[in-house]
Amino acid sequence: MSTQAEIDQKFLQLALEQAKKGYSENGIPIGAVLVSADGKVLGAGHNQRLQKGSAILHGEMDALEKAGRLPGSAYKGATMYSTLSPCNMCTGACLLYGINRVVFGENKTFVGGEDLLRSKGAEVINLENEECYDLMQKFIAERPQDWNEDIGV
Amino acid sequence: MSTQAEIDQKFLQLALEQAKKGYSENGIPIGAVLVSADGKVLGAGHNQRLQKGSAILHGEMDALEKAGRLPGSAYKGATMYSTLSPCNMCTGACLLYGINRVVFGENKTFVGGEDLLRSKGAEVINLENEECYDLMQKFIAERPQDWNEDIGV
Repeated sequence: MSTQAEIDQKFLQLALEQAKKGYSENGIPIGAVLVSADGKVLGAGHNQRLQKGSAILHGEMDALEKAGRLPGSAYKGATMYSTLSPCNMCTGACLLYGINRVVFGENKTFVGGEDLLRSKGAEVINLENEECYDLMQKFIAERPQDWNEDIGV
Repeated sequence: MSTQAEIDQKFLQLALEQAKKGYSENGIPIGAVLVSADGKVLGAGHNQRLQKGSAILHGEMDALEKAGRLPGSAYKGATMYSTLSPCNMCTGACLLYGINRVVFGENKTFVGGEDLLRSKGAEVINLENEECYDLMQKFIAERPQDWNEDIGV
């Protein structure tokens, strides 16, 4: 049996693979994986702003979209894994679907709606993953304007 | 010169047209229009859950997506018009982009993130439009399960 901490590390790695895939597509390197209460990957995705000219396909949104239409019950007990602290939009999407566990790689680059998630009773965990951070810092150094656009700055 | 109240009614009608378009496509009849500070329609859209099998294309999200990639400055002073009180996801999307004015048709069917928007300094206006309400009630009576799915129930 894996511990919850081991499980979280495993799924963060899947999110990081998605982020790397995004980077390899010349996209913003943020990845996410939505995992059901029983450990099944419902959807995996990455930020598609640059690839698809999208204003809404952040990593977490892409994971939700890849998961497709699901009954509300499918999200209960699910965990959203993201390489980066989820912004207000992605936070709101988690709240809409009652995804009350959010695990992310880092929040040194950006702090999203963590306080709001906690205020609504969600569990929020920062794994302080240096690789997630380094990948974002590399991208931002290369393309600061694209990053600013992604967070509405 | 039109008053702000007249302008708001005009753009709510555009959102309602979008909602009706959605209904005519056998979709969930919620429409939205994003309007810039100088009164230009940046994007108009409607809920696409049933049409596109989407978990994220609520009316407001579709309007944002139709507006496409924009610099953060384009959203400043903008108003999001929706036929229905925006859910937490759509509320979060407005917060992400600094859309600090939200006008909607009704909140008798559903109350979204109005308090959160106000707490962040946004202006929130309910136009109490009976046609928006009646259209939603008609849809919900016809397809209650699809509506529940759309709000994560």
